This record gives sequence, structure tokens and C-alpha cells, in this order.
Amino acid sequence: MNNKEISQAVVARLPRYYRYLGDLRDEGVERISSQELSKIMHVTASQIRQDFNHFGGFGQQGYGYNTDYLYEEIGKILGLDHPHNMILIGAGHLGSALIGYMNFRRRGYLFKAAFDINEALFNQTISGIPVYPMSDMPDYIKNNNIDIVVITISKQEAVKVVEVLNRCPIKAIWNFAHCELEVREDIQVENVHLSDSLMQLSYQIRQYELRHSREEEDGKKDSTRHPAGKHPHKNEEAG
Amino acid sequence: MNNKEISQAVVARLPRYYRYLGDLRDEGVERISSQELSKIMHVTASQIRQDFNHFGGFGQQGYGYNTDYLYEEIGKILGLDHPHNMILIGAGHLGSALIGYMNFRRRGYLFKAAFDINEALFNQTISGIPVYPMSDMPDYIKNNNIDIVVITISKQEAVKVVEVLNRCPIKAIWNFAHCELEVREDIQVENVHLSDSLMQLSYQIRQYELRHSREEEDGKKDSTRHPAGKHPHKNEEAG
Repeated sequence: MNNKEISQAVVARLPRYYRYLGDLRDEGVERISSQELSKIMHVTASQIRQDFNHFGGFGQQGYGYNTDYLYEEIGKILGLDHPHNMILIGAGHLGSALIGYMNFRRRGYLFKAAFDINEALFNQTISGIPVYPMSDMPDYIKNNNIDIVVITISKQEAVKVVEVLNRCPIKAIWNFAHCELEVREDIQVENVHLSDSLMQLSYQIRQYELRHSREEEDGKKDSTRHPAGKHPHKNEEAG
Repeated sequence: MNNKEISQAVVARLPRYYRYLGDLRDEGVERISSQELSKIMHVTASQIRQDFNHFGGFGQQGYGYNTDYLYEEIGKILGLDHPHNMILIGAGHLGSALIGYMNFRRRGYLFKAAFDINEALFNQTISGIPVYPMSDMPDYIKNNNIDIVVITISKQEAVKVVEVLNRCPIKAIWNFAHCELEVREDIQVENVHLSDSLMQLSYQIRQYELRHSREEEDGKKDSTRHPAGKHPHKNEEAG
């Protein structure tokens, strides 16, 4: 397997393949062709074959891929063949939502404890997971083989916490704070910037409206082009 | 302004520019050069100039960009020059976290109401936002000029809700359900698939470990290459 030069775009598609293959497996589908997978996932069959070829192709034959095998192999590539111990920093609503999400546990992402500065939460539990004071965190990480730290606190707090985490034996941070983190070179970071995602959505709205008003302008010049009452389709080529 | 052919990668960087420029503005920085911005944001100055050129360049002169102007202009491109009315579907922990997030409100993303199927929540409020029965949703959208619907419910429920939303005059869906949605062509969708993000993180962990164990193998063959006790740097070229 040669995953040295796999682009971020391919990597971003892997979890999606994994989700769809999990559904197919649950439905008892034993084999699937790239054409069938293409239809369900709205990507081209050639894109699917190209993506899979980065990982050796997963042994497609005339009658398609073995669903179980493909699911397991992609799972291995995503690091799902062994469990990951996690802790949460910041036991608010967002953190509680993440702890309560059953699919994480099912895939081996195991929350072991949460940490907060709010004394009222100490020794309470969230979906069965205990909440401890922040000061206990470094020792807890050391003694409990923690891989992934999930951060759901403010930008200001996150900067301070990361200084502590840089001295702890962790492998990765899943960051929901609204800033980039300065981490040790062997700590992997994945950011979830929710406000960025929302801004991309309003960008899309604005772009659609700009395109649409341009099309209406064009429509006035050539009113026979679009049937009345029907919006021109998004992907229709400009005349 | 010609934004017709702007790639997804450029669009994904815009909110990040906006965040950093907002911070600079708050700090009272009036002008900034692409070199200075590059240093803060860890992207190259030429990348920044290229990105900005898609939108007309924002009038950089010898002494850099006007921070206020740049912030306002990128805000307009992101559709932040007017407010967006939003509703939430699914008043659980995740939804409550989103409603409570002050930065959304500050940027004109205004939650007006939440909808749920849990009767115990009806006529309660979350951070001051009322919760109503799901059956009230279509009328509420029609009467309150709702642009964006935020979905924080299960995959199974989301599929049903989207059928209803396809008949409502909305512009966009911010989707946290773990599936792709089949929407009307004029509805924009932005997905936040949290489990995909977590899988990308464990992919990165695994890749780091593979790379690292390969480097250790290489190190055994040529033990003088890396000083003892010091990990080879991530970006160091393989010998």
C-alpha cells in the first residue's frame, strides 16, 4: 500500500465511503459494483475506482467489490481497527452532545472522562462519563492511555490548555475552539470551525442569488429561453 | 467582481481570513500587508494575494490592505452584510450549543425558533429561543421569512423532515444529520459530518505512525542520521 501522496480530497471522501458501505452491509448487500456505488453516492464510478486505486484497488472483479471486505479495509485505513481512548475538555452542551453520540462508541472512539473548570460539574456524569477538575487532566492522560483530546472550550481557554497538552503524551486533538492551535509536531489536529461552515453556507446563498438575478436579467433580454414559472436548473450551461 | 469560477478551496479559506481580520480590527490594526497576514495565518503571501485577486484584489497598495475595508468586503462576499433568519430542528444538546453560540448572533445569524417532537420541550426556551412542535414548522417558516434551517436530528428523521422542507420557501439547510439530503435545486446545503471529521483525525494518527515507524526502520539502517532522543521532523525529506 502506498499512501504517501494521497491528496486531502481523497482522504476527505474515505469516511463517506465508509458510512455508505456500513449502511449496505447492514442491509445485507454482499457485493457491489462501482457503478451501483456511484449511483447511491452521487459520484462517478471512475472517481470511485481512482480513489480505491490509491489503496491497492480492494480487489474489484467483474462482479464488483465484496462489501464486507471493502468496509473492513477502509476502516483499517481510517484507523478504526483498534479503539481510541478520548477525553473531553469543556463539559458544556456541545461536549455533552459529542459524549452522547452512540456512533462514536460503536466505531471505537471511547470517551473516558470529561474535564471542566466549573466546580458544580465535578463528579457528576454525562452519559455515564465522569467530569473531573481541569487540574487532574495531565495525570489522567498519563495513567489512562489517552490518544485523542476533544476541545470544546473558548478560544482564550484553548490557547492555555494546549500549552499543557503539549507536555502530555497524546496523539491528537479534535478542536472545536474557534482558533488554530500551536501544537507539538507529533500531535495531529483536526479543526471543526462551525462558524466557518455557516459562513460558507451564506456564501452559497449569495452566489445562488447573484447567478439567479443574472439569469433573470438574461431572461428579460430573451424571454423565450426559460419556460414561464420554471427556474433554470443550476447546472444548465449559460447560453 | 467575477466569482464564477472560484474553487471550493478558495471559498473554504474566506471565513478564515474573515476571522483573522476581525481579530486584527478588534486589536486596532488599521493596515496590514500580505506578508504580515501571511505570518499570522501560516499561509504564503502569494497564496493570499492570489485568493484576494479572485475578488478584485481589495485595493492593496505599497503599504498593504486597509483592515476595516478588507474585513467588510470579505463579509459581503460571505453574505454577512444582511441578517439571516434561522430555525433549529432538533432541540437536543447539539442544537442547544448552536443556539447559545454568541458569535453567530453577532454576525447576523439569528435563531428565531426551535422545533422538536418532544412534547416536554414545547413552549420552553433555549437561550431565550422558544421551542415549538414540529407540525408548526411549515407555517412558521412562511410567516417569519426564514432563510436557513439547521438540522440536528437523526438520519432517519432528517430524511422525512427534508421532504417537508422541500415545500417550504427556505434558501439553505445547515445539516448535522449523518446523511446526504435530497433537496430542491434552489436550496443550498452545507453538511457538518462530525463522525467524518473524527475519522479523518484517526486517519492522520495512523499515517503519522506509519511514517514514523518507517523512519525508525530507516534509522536502524543508518543510526547516525537522527540525533538520539530527538524525533525526526514531520516535514523532513526522506533520505
